Amino acid sequence: MNGFLGEFLGTMVLIVLGVGTGAGVNLKTSYARNSGWLFITIAWGMAVTFGVYVAGSFGSQGHLNPAVTIPFAIFGFFPWDQVLPYLLGQFLGAFVGAVLVIIQYGAQFKNAKDANDGNVVGIFATGPAINNGLYNFLSETIATFVFILTLLNLGDFTKGLKPLIVGLLIMVVGQALGGTTGFALNPARDWAPRFAYSVLPVPNKGDSNWGYAWVPMFGPLAGGLIAACVQYFLM
Amino acid sequence: MNGFLGEFLGTMVLIVLGVGTGAGVNLKTSYARNSGWLFITIAWGMAVTFGVYVAGSFGSQGHLNPAVTIPFAIFGFFPWDQVLPYLLGQFLGAFVGAVLVIIQYGAQFKNAKDANDGNVVGIFATGPAINNGLYNFLSETIATFVFILTLLNLGDFTKGLKPLIVGLLIMVVGQALGGTTGFALNPARDWAPRFAYSVLPVPNKGDSNWGYAWVPMFGPLAGGLIAACVQYFLM
Amino acid sequence: MNGFLGEFLGTMVLIVLGVGTGAGVNLKTSYARNSGWLFITIAWGMAVTFGVYVAGSFGSQGHLNPAVTIPFAIFGFFPWDQVLPYLLGQFLGAFVGAVLVIIQYGAQFKNAKDANDGNVVGIFATGPAINNGLYNFLSETIATFVFILTLLNLGDFTKGLKPLIVGLLIMVVGQALGGTTGFALNPARDWAPRFAYSVLPVPNKGDSNWGYAWVPMFGPLAGGLIAACVQYFLM
Amino acid sequence: MNGFLGEFLGTMVLIVLGVGTGAGVNLKTSYARNSGWLFITIAWGMAVTFGVYVAGSFGSQGHLNPAVTIPFAIFGFFPWDQVLPYLLGQFLGAFVGAVLVIIQYGAQFKNAKDANDGNVVGIFATGPAINNGLYNFLSETIATFVFILTLLNLGDFTKGLKPLIVGLLIMVVGQALGGTTGFALNPARDWAPRFAYSVLPVPNKGDSNWGYAWVPMFGPLAGGLIAACVQYFLM
Repeated sequence: MNGFLGEFLGTMVLIVLGVGTGAGVNLKTSYARNSGWLFITIAWGMAVTFGVYVAGSFGSQGHLNPAVTIPFAIFGFFPWDQVLPYLLGQFLGAFVGAVLVIIQYGAQFKNAKDANDGNVVGIFATGPAINNGLYNFLSETIATFVFILTLLNLGDFTKGLKPLIVGLLIMVVGQALGGTTGFALNPARDWAPRFAYSVLPVPNKGDSNWGYAWVPMFGPLAGGLIAACVQYFLM
Repeated sequence: MNGFLGEFLGTMVLIVLGVGTGAGVNLKTSYARNSGWLFITIAWGMAVTFGVYVAGSFGSQGHLNPAVTIPFAIFGFFPWDQVLPYLLGQFLGAFVGAVLVIIQYGAQFKNAKDANDGNVVGIFATGPAINNGLYNFLSETIATFVFILTLLNLGDFTKGLKPLIVGLLIMVVGQALGGTTGFALNPARDWAPRFAYSVLPVPNKGDSNWGYAWVPMFGPLAGGLIAACVQYFLM
Repeated sequence: MNGFLGEFLGTMVLIVLGVGTGAGVNLKTSYARNSGWLFITIAWGMAVTFGVYVAGSFGSQGHLNPAVTIPFAIFGFFPWDQVLPYLLGQFLGAFVGAVLVIIQYGAQFKNAKDANDGNVVGIFATGPAINNGLYNFLSETIATFVFILTLLNLGDFTKGLKPLIVGLLIMVVGQALGGTTGFALNPARDWAPRFAYSVLPVPNKGDSNWGYAWVPMFGPLAGGLIAACVQYFLM
Repeated sequence: MNGFLGEFLGTMVLIVLGVGTGAGVNLKTSYARNSGWLFITIAWGMAVTFGVYVAGSFGSQGHLNPAVTIPFAIFGFFPWDQVLPYLLGQFLGAFVGAVLVIIQYGAQFKNAKDANDGNVVGIFATGPAINNGLYNFLSETIATFVFILTLLNLGDFTKGLKPLIVGLLIMVVGQALGGTTGFALNPARDWAPRFAYSVLPVPNKGDSNWGYAWVPMFGPLAGGLIAACVQYFLM
């Protein structure tokens, strides 16, 4: 149960801060509008830091990400019987985080009439700079591979100041490898907010672009699997 | 007594650095003018970090914020008999911090004739990007809820390098959730500098916008109460 | 002797990184040109961090600043017989640091014909945004007061990760209070590079503005004295 | 063998994150395009941080740089019989890192027709802001001298949070001293990705500028030698 609760609250914090940044940077009449890629990557990094702190405090391992949980279980870094509560916590927490952002920026959503005003699914979910299925998939795979291979060499990352280091890792992965597909790295981070945008009554909303959603689902899972596999055989 | 002194000095440092940033970014003929939202959120974050260091060094718990002190007392995280000296220290310290900023930027205030030159209450206090009482209140409530729920899971945040982590938390809350109302998160941070601007002879000053001040008073208190309540029942 | 050597090397590192940033941001045909106030304050902060690391490693207390050393001695935080070697190390180290920057950016200095190309004393020393002796002095006094009062409450700042915290303190003081006079905070940081610019054969150089130099000398000393005095009586 | 593996994986992570940033900032149709010098220096700094973490976890000392390994061996800070596996790991790891970036930004490389679209060797390797062999060599020498002298005074930099400090050191060296030649500081970081760009079928690629490559080879080696020599005689 602690695992579920920690992942739920931690992923909620991750998404309210990360997707909140998406809203603040995109929507018309927000003080953070057009703050740029440095701002976005710093904020997503710190969103992960504080998600990990909250999750760790409630007794979960602070994965916040199915592309961590599933490969870790497959290669014996994590017990299988905890996988389901972790995944459930991750998707539910991400959904609730997205709901909080919709309320937080309620006046902005009403005020932003269309894509020109920044009212787009890109606030909630990732999309490619160049639409190319193969390269987009490879991008998410490589970025998540680098992220998780490094993560596996940080030691227990929920203790002391290590959550800060994990956040900085996400930040730099976004800076170096996120220019292509917006660094989903995490199926729950992409799918649950995309689902929230698509089913909830967000004012003036645009298309949810589910046609692209296979990339942020399978790319991160593939990258996580390769990283855990490499670590397993090298260590 | 230590509680009062720590909160007084800590909040003074918080406000001289935070409101000082407001002055530097807004006023004409300042090297920091128009430095943008990333700059502002980094500086407010570090303002909190060093406020907490100073407060902790003088023996207070480094709240610097009635929306921390009051909910913590209600839910038993803090003794009631310390509440009054803490609140007094917070409001007085914030007032003195604002006075120091008025002197620091004295030549700039004289040089800035009006709102076009950045001589506005927004240097001292928060205001909404879109004026909408209900959503503004919800924004401050949600942002403070996320801030204080996370804060409650950081352990003793005045020790070691934890004040840095608290500062980064304020930074990312400002980045993710501050686009709407400018992340007051703290009644003392908003009311005491607003009061200083309204009563002191700041050259060329504009309106103090007290009509909005209920939001940064009651929003943060509501958010802090909900966060402490959630933590109390989940832990 | 260790005190002298540590202060010499530490201040050399501080100035080569800080003044180097001044050169990179100002001079024509530099990749860092016009990088802005956030960039400048981050770099000066980290310049202090690594100056403190180097000084501490050689056994000095990492002051790197007469406005720390002298007030600390007066109020009993530092032994008087070490003051002279510390001051000597600080001014000599700052001079050598400035010499290294002149060589580092030699091609840029030759290429920058005048003030429009950024070839100005502002690379090496501070200057006011608005020329007003009284307010400029008050600005340096208040900024240094806030800096040193906080520094006195950080514990032993040369150990562990504390040099990072000292650097972040300089960064946020620059962000919040540096918009007026460019945050000298330190007579050695201002006078020794100004002297280097004025006596060495820097190509195409402009005026050294010694008429302003009393402010970054006496403002920081006054601010440091007030901070040490406040700390002495409150603690 | 651990030394080789650690250096190989650590330098791979360093280059995939650092050169990835070069791609993201330069190439047309990347979200990170034109993110500026602050962004670039932060990302390269963190690239080093995580390279050091990974290398340290696999049991190497986290040099990732021949300009660290060779001077350390000459002055007795590192055993000679480990030099060859370290150098091999560094160059091979940097090459593989560059290959990953070529795949990661595959769609962008195809889309960027020429230098105007950012398809340049500058993504992979360094180049001077002003072409001047002597000053360029002095720039790399001084920058690497400051970097390695400071590094030698940080203690064991692979443990705890010290890799973060090393990354911030690279960041500020880039900010202060990188405006001239783009802060190679490291022959492997420059030569191996330059070689990858020159031999691999990168779409629409430009010239590899091998004529400049002697600077990032011999400048860093000279700077590292001077730094290790100074440290050896002063300590």
